[in-house]
Amino acid sequence: MTTLSTFDEVPGRYKVRDLSLATAGRHQIRLAEHEMPGLMALRAEYGPSQPLAGARIAGSIHMTVQTAVLIETLTALGAEVRWASCNIFSTQDEAAAAVVVGAGTPEAPTGVPVFAWKGESLEEYWECTEQILVWPGDVRPNMILDDGGDATLLVHKGAEFERLGVVPTDGQPGDRGYSEEYNLILGVLRRSLEGDPQRWTRIAAEIQGVTEETTTGVHRLYQLHEAGELLFPAINVNDSVTKSKFDNKYGIRHSLPDGINRATDVLMGGKLAFVAGYGDVGKGAAEAFRGQGARVVVSEVDPICALQAAMDGYQVVRLEDVVGQADFFITTTGNRDVITAEHMQAMKNKAVVGNIGHFDNEIDMAGLAAIPGIVRTEIKPQVHEWVFPDGRSIIVLSEGRLLNLGNATGHPSFVMSSSFTNQVIAQIELFTKREEYPVGVYRLPKVLDEKVARLHLDALGARLTVLDKTQAEYLGVDAAGPFKPEHYRY
Amino acid sequence: MTTLSTFDEVPGRYKVRDLSLATAGRHQIRLAEHEMPGLMALRAEYGPSQPLAGARIAGSIHMTVQTAVLIETLTALGAEVRWASCNIFSTQDEAAAAVVVGAGTPEAPTGVPVFAWKGESLEEYWECTEQILVWPGDVRPNMILDDGGDATLLVHKGAEFERLGVVPTDGQPGDRGYSEEYNLILGVLRRSLEGDPQRWTRIAAEIQGVTEETTTGVHRLYQLHEAGELLFPAINVNDSVTKSKFDNKYGIRHSLPDGINRATDVLMGGKLAFVAGYGDVGKGAAEAFRGQGARVVVSEVDPICALQAAMDGYQVVRLEDVVGQADFFITTTGNRDVITAEHMQAMKNKAVVGNIGHFDNEIDMAGLAAIPGIVRTEIKPQVHEWVFPDGRSIIVLSEGRLLNLGNATGHPSFVMSSSFTNQVIAQIELFTKREEYPVGVYRLPKVLDEKVARLHLDALGARLTVLDKTQAEYLGVDAAGPFKPEHYRY
Amino acid sequence: MTTLSTFDEVPGRYKVRDLSLATAGRHQIRLAEHEMPGLMALRAEYGPSQPLAGARIAGSIHMTVQTAVLIETLTALGAEVRWASCNIFSTQDEAAAAVVVGAGTPEAPTGVPVFAWKGESLEEYWECTEQILVWPGDVRPNMILDDGGDATLLVHKGAEFERLGVVPTDGQPGDRGYSEEYNLILGVLRRSLEGDPQRWTRIAAEIQGVTEETTTGVHRLYQLHEAGELLFPAINVNDSVTKSKFDNKYGIRHSLPDGINRATDVLMGGKLAFVAGYGDVGKGAAEAFRGQGARVVVSEVDPICALQAAMDGYQVVRLEDVVGQADFFITTTGNRDVITAEHMQAMKNKAVVGNIGHFDNEIDMAGLAAIPGIVRTEIKPQVHEWVFPDGRSIIVLSEGRLLNLGNATGHPSFVMSSSFTNQVIAQIELFTKREEYPVGVYRLPKVLDEKVARLHLDALGARLTVLDKTQAEYLGVDAAGPFKPEHYRY
Amino acid sequence: MTTLSTFDEVPGRYKVRDLSLATAGRHQIRLAEHEMPGLMALRAEYGPSQPLAGARIAGSIHMTVQTAVLIETLTALGAEVRWASCNIFSTQDEAAAAVVVGAGTPEAPTGVPVFAWKGESLEEYWECTEQILVWPGDVRPNMILDDGGDATLLVHKGAEFERLGVVPTDGQPGDRGYSEEYNLILGVLRRSLEGDPQRWTRIAAEIQGVTEETTTGVHRLYQLHEAGELLFPAINVNDSVTKSKFDNKYGIRHSLPDGINRATDVLMGGKLAFVAGYGDVGKGAAEAFRGQGARVVVSEVDPICALQAAMDGYQVVRLEDVVGQADFFITTTGNRDVITAEHMQAMKNKAVVGNIGHFDNEIDMAGLAAIPGIVRTEIKPQVHEWVFPDGRSIIVLSEGRLLNLGNATGHPSFVMSSSFTNQVIAQIELFTKREEYPVGVYRLPKVLDEKVARLHLDALGARLTVLDKTQAEYLGVDAAGPFKPEHYRY
Repeated sequence: MTTLSTFDEVPGRYKVRDLSLATAGRHQIRLAEHEMPGLMALRAEYGPSQPLAGARIAGSIHMTVQTAVLIETLTALGAEVRWASCNIFSTQDEAAAAVVVGAGTPEAPTGVPVFAWKGESLEEYWECTEQILVWPGDVRPNMILDDGGDATLLVHKGAEFERLGVVPTDGQPGDRGYSEEYNLILGVLRRSLEGDPQRWTRIAAEIQGVTEETTTGVHRLYQLHEAGELLFPAINVNDSVTKSKFDNKYGIRHSLPDGINRATDVLMGGKLAFVAGYGDVGKGAAEAFRGQGARVVVSEVDPICALQAAMDGYQVVRLEDVVGQADFFITTTGNRDVITAEHMQAMKNKAVVGNIGHFDNEIDMAGLAAIPGIVRTEIKPQVHEWVFPDGRSIIVLSEGRLLNLGNATGHPSFVMSSSFTNQVIAQIELFTKREEYPVGVYRLPKVLDEKVARLHLDALGARLTVLDKTQAEYLGVDAAGPFKPEHYRY
Repeated sequence: MTTLSTFDEVPGRYKVRDLSLATAGRHQIRLAEHEMPGLMALRAEYGPSQPLAGARIAGSIHMTVQTAVLIETLTALGAEVRWASCNIFSTQDEAAAAVVVGAGTPEAPTGVPVFAWKGESLEEYWECTEQILVWPGDVRPNMILDDGGDATLLVHKGAEFERLGVVPTDGQPGDRGYSEEYNLILGVLRRSLEGDPQRWTRIAAEIQGVTEETTTGVHRLYQLHEAGELLFPAINVNDSVTKSKFDNKYGIRHSLPDGINRATDVLMGGKLAFVAGYGDVGKGAAEAFRGQGARVVVSEVDPICALQAAMDGYQVVRLEDVVGQADFFITTTGNRDVITAEHMQAMKNKAVVGNIGHFDNEIDMAGLAAIPGIVRTEIKPQVHEWVFPDGRSIIVLSEGRLLNLGNATGHPSFVMSSSFTNQVIAQIELFTKREEYPVGVYRLPKVLDEKVARLHLDALGARLTVLDKTQAEYLGVDAAGPFKPEHYRY
Repeated sequence: MTTLSTFDEVPGRYKVRDLSLATAGRHQIRLAEHEMPGLMALRAEYGPSQPLAGARIAGSIHMTVQTAVLIETLTALGAEVRWASCNIFSTQDEAAAAVVVGAGTPEAPTGVPVFAWKGESLEEYWECTEQILVWPGDVRPNMILDDGGDATLLVHKGAEFERLGVVPTDGQPGDRGYSEEYNLILGVLRRSLEGDPQRWTRIAAEIQGVTEETTTGVHRLYQLHEAGELLFPAINVNDSVTKSKFDNKYGIRHSLPDGINRATDVLMGGKLAFVAGYGDVGKGAAEAFRGQGARVVVSEVDPICALQAAMDGYQVVRLEDVVGQADFFITTTGNRDVITAEHMQAMKNKAVVGNIGHFDNEIDMAGLAAIPGIVRTEIKPQVHEWVFPDGRSIIVLSEGRLLNLGNATGHPSFVMSSSFTNQVIAQIELFTKREEYPVGVYRLPKVLDEKVARLHLDALGARLTVLDKTQAEYLGVDAAGPFKPEHYRY
Repeated sequence: MTTLSTFDEVPGRYKVRDLSLATAGRHQIRLAEHEMPGLMALRAEYGPSQPLAGARIAGSIHMTVQTAVLIETLTALGAEVRWASCNIFSTQDEAAAAVVVGAGTPEAPTGVPVFAWKGESLEEYWECTEQILVWPGDVRPNMILDDGGDATLLVHKGAEFERLGVVPTDGQPGDRGYSEEYNLILGVLRRSLEGDPQRWTRIAAEIQGVTEETTTGVHRLYQLHEAGELLFPAINVNDSVTKSKFDNKYGIRHSLPDGINRATDVLMGGKLAFVAGYGDVGKGAAEAFRGQGARVVVSEVDPICALQAAMDGYQVVRLEDVVGQADFFITTTGNRDVITAEHMQAMKNKAVVGNIGHFDNEIDMAGLAAIPGIVRTEIKPQVHEWVFPDGRSIIVLSEGRLLNLGNATGHPSFVMSSSFTNQVIAQIELFTKREEYPVGVYRLPKVLDEKVARLHLDALGARLTVLDKTQAEYLGVDAAGPFKPEHYRY
């Protein structure tokens, strides 16, 4: 049993992993590579030219098997990489171990420093995030690859406080906007400024750009840019069609029932499933339930999405209308307090409640825990029965966090290939054409979005039709694309 | 049997209609009103304030029962209207007759001049279009409501030729871009300039704007605007979500199988259906076939749409791959020569071929007719068997034109309500806020798009959820909408 | 305009038909033949051996284009045939005319006597039924091919009354079980006994068997047999898998939406459809609505079918639960009074009501008509708006009779091919193996049921797998079938 | 860590289980009870009258959480029970432990002897089966509850050999019909006869009947009966509609994708899935794949099932046609050698192969292992990559055994409730009406089948419609059922 030297970089801090874990992870990575044709195609196309040579990428995405393939694609294209997870629970330890060890192949010769394990504390989480940005020696990252924007946040906050010369004091419970987690960030930066009062300023100056793949992270970037505070250009990968309409919809269609099954083994067929929200995630969720023979009802605040749901054959209700009848309650909204404690008390006995949207505040877990006399029993990890004083109970998945990651293994590789191919292309775009991107938030050109799609067709046996010259002229497009106006909705 | 005086306006020209036709049409209009809640809601909301008082609208849309409800909504809001169809076959004579006669109600007291009948010649078609723009006396239209852009085209060409002082001579077969139909337009304008060399210039000057609802018409508007030749502002109604993602998808889902059934009575279940194109129309078509138990294969030129088709469970093929196996061939592309004569010769015996995309050039009808020895037999109107010399034959619907209009009655009322509510709202917007719209092409503000959706929810029993203040703040939106960023794809 | 001599057989009785009608019908028959591979395969297989030579078949099935192909298949196998429709509305006149004229081909050289037209009176209906049983000269039919059992009924009643020596007097309104139609039957037989008091006895003696294809007709046969009154053997074609699980389910899936569309043009997508009954017909109906994006709720009396509906994702309700919400109400039960006048009064404005089960008593049309102050308006043939005194109204299709036949053209050819291939095989079976079938009610041997299926696979591109010897032994079946135990449910 | 005394009954033989396992199992049993309304309803209905008092049941079904609810239902109705699993891998140890410990409730006061654990050897398996039949002291079982017929087989073979006075000598490899497993059975019986040469004869004499729930077990029973060798009456539970059309179809729809997901995490959407067989299991499998957006192709030997597949929209192929294209290969046939080693060599790289039909001989695992140069790598338990000499590989699930049990947790509780309610009702029927069942194989009366369905409706929110007197008379049925003729197929 050998400890992995990479983890010794910060002595005593990172958990020891064993080589058998890495071996298991390597098997899974190898199988995942087969399911990630976009990334493998990029290795084939760009491996020889090494467009990311010189790139030093600080990466923060759930440290899964699929992310391992992403990381090793980046290194295969010439980049140096350091990695953290963007969620305390989502690391697959065998994947992390395998990446640390490396495959001994040209693409992954010696391993990559990974600062992530399943079940970090929040404090450890932010220390890990710091580690991917603070490189050994007088070297700094020059690119960020982000999911949720935490790495980007740390750089911006660090630079801001260095400019001010001081880190604010911790917030106190009761303060407006108080957040325990924010205090942890302040702590990390306070220690940092003590050691080097210009560290983040130098890092920020060196970073050429960030590529970000979530709705939430993108939202933060637009806000920063509108406030004039964005320090480097950003590519909004989230709004590539091949990300938002694939990962969100088809990924959820797969991983929602997977999560429910592994957690509960409860039949969906014939049951009533309530889905809050009919955006891309909600569309995938509703389709998944329907595909299993469940009846699906949907709630929406947006009348356009509501009309889509109705026309797709789903009854559009308010939660109050069905709270006593539904068997499953799934949130997909990105909003808060979608399911309240009051709602949960009104549910029928043994109803299953889960979130697959974004933050755990979609379901009011705090409110649930505060019900007098309620008892929480762990059925198995990430599956809890909450028993009300009257004896009825509900089953809550993953403590209100993303159930597909908490109760299953997240989206399947093929879907992540589409998302991550956008990431790699965006990294190449920003790193190699830095002068074409002044500070701002950009979407990938449509032709690159189409390229991502193109790289995934063969694996599905799909044969694309090619426009002849006359047809392309008739349509007024290039036969190689792009094919649609910017406002086209797919 | 009384002839309708309105048709006598241009003596001897318009076909005589009888009152029993109008009675039948009125029944259908009354039933359609029930299915067009958006339009009826606008009557209720805006009837009292008469926002279109003073509007003189030249309207050109298929003269169907649904359009009758549109026309009478415009008049109920105060407008004066003259109407033509935008297609030589699509008029439902009983609807036209009923609109001409009027309902004797406040909304439709005395009837509206309609210049349309089923089965116009192309020459008659352009004369009808002229009639909606040339009003009696010294009165001119000040708004255009268009579908395909023919009314808009006539005004622009008329004004252009008046500026030049001359109408070009007719093109000759063999000239580049020669079109028999364009010669007919030139003829109309030549006669017009002879009578009044400033007529179109005055019309153009008076028109405050056009609202246009097709992809093709919108494409023309953008081209005109880019060339600096657009004479008045335009609202692109086509790209409202509640138009393009509803009419195109859900309307086709309904009217495609309807057209095929009425034409052929051939079972779809268990058969192989080839759908060319997986845009909104193709998506609706594929879903319709699947809903009937057919196997569906799809062709695409756009890799993103191709990947969507694959992920939705449809095999993506080239036409050549399945030309000998498929039972149905449906085009939805908006492109030309999608099905060639060569393709048709390779199809299996009794294959059914139809177009539901746009122009009849999606299928090479001319090439089919030119095959030596081919024989065309009319099975019934709009259904023809084309027998190849070897005895095999194929069935072509509506001579390659839109089969849902040619073989059935087009989209159902509810779907058209969504499209037409956009039209009416756009007319109000342009007419009442003329100063806010400099010459250019606009889409409706998202909040109005949402309003259209909102007006159709009750009829489907859909109950919208309302954001509370905290939730709206959390999302950074107004609780009344709009809810999504502009680039959101639904 | 030439009258058809065949119709002159009973001078002045049958409507004159013109040859252009026959020409149109022949086109449709030719196209239908392509969609009826089972029948065409039987022509190819049995044409040379003429197994029905000597058979004189009295046939009673809806006189449609598909039945024309059936009739001409029977004659192609050597039979002599006379035909009536089994429903006063279901004849397609052009099909009848074409059969009467014949095709001038070996299969249909000179035409077949057909006693049927669209819109018979009930009196004419029973006279037509008599005509197929009473052949010219001293010739009598020796086989019956029946749908609903009316031909069989007439023979049994005729023989019974001849045995008794008298036809009972007509029932009077108010008598228990009084039926106006039964009086018409008594009238036909009374006239017959006056002319020849042993006619039906001789006919009954000569008939070797009947093949019957409906649930209702089969039910009558089992009752006759249990009562010891059945006069000749019967094959229950209805319960062949390739009949009941195909015609009923897949035929309805096609023809239900077709009928609704042609009748109303009302969107199904997003609407709420109530389907009474979840047998094979109900299963097909529910699938059709779902395929169009409607929400479907189902009522059932049988808990097993109810559980199937629930597991297939349909809410199982009582009609009362949704009577005020549903947009469509469709009966498929074979039961009476499923939708009462009281139900209809409680429906929402403009609800669409139709029956696709069997008799028109599924919907209480008499009760509807008896509501004081109700007004019935014909929107178009077979589509009526019934306006209640309060101004609300409902739309009733085909006056409560089978809407797929009344508002559209019934099941498509391919489905009918499966049913009719069973009929022909059953006719051959009974006619050529008469000694193997003592009086009784039989189902076709499973291997013949499988044969019917087999004959329809090629047309759908289906390739059957063949058991090798080891596998067949392992399963304990013959590699040529039959493959399943008798109680297998498919 | 306390050992469970029950397991000490046969000292040293059964693995020690700890109480924490039993606690976890009890949680799961409690949740499963909520999903098994049929069994809970039987407890409520029959608990007071104790119809199984005096029954001594030898039970052999996969020892899962659901089976625990079954066992405790039997004891709640008065039975004494001993239990074994019918599969070496399918025991859920926590469920077994909980049953052994008991719940301390009236239904399950002190626990039940269970002879089963996950991962038995075949030899242990047959010893466990012996244990449920050989009770301590001079007590013998009087009922068998069987799944696959192994318990029944042992009794019949034991009695046969005792009659012969000798157990045959072991077969040798190369003998016709040689089976290593059969030698193990001979070994068990040889030891038994040595100890007591009339043991099985006495057991057989005392057994009043067996209820059997699998196709295979039922097949054996019919064979025994035809051979005149059946020793006691049997109820064929498998062919209750609420078993074969529920468990097989809806259970598989749930547990097939569950098994694939847990095993591979590979996306199904957009992929090509080959399903061998379109019986009830195949129907459920195909629907599951389609519901996830996969394309599905089906192979069949039975032309009727093949036609059903085609009409349901699945392409019917031979395995050879798609062996190089499909991504998933699933067998559902009950036949042998459906996928051969040759097939597997022709599959595309990383294809996933699994069986959900019955025995592991559907896939030729032995042939696969015998390919020269092939390498088998365990990715994780029950998931193996088989690498061919050319470097390509395939993934085989559960070593060719039932993947839903091997890779997931089998059918969900609700579905098993339907099957097991049939079992309990059949036990009551045979035990309490022993005189009505001479030796033979019976199906449950339809009215009891309907009762099983009825007990599961409430939990799905389904409301049954009740026939009124007039309607019941019109249909000729009792308003309480049964509703359908015996040959009705549902």
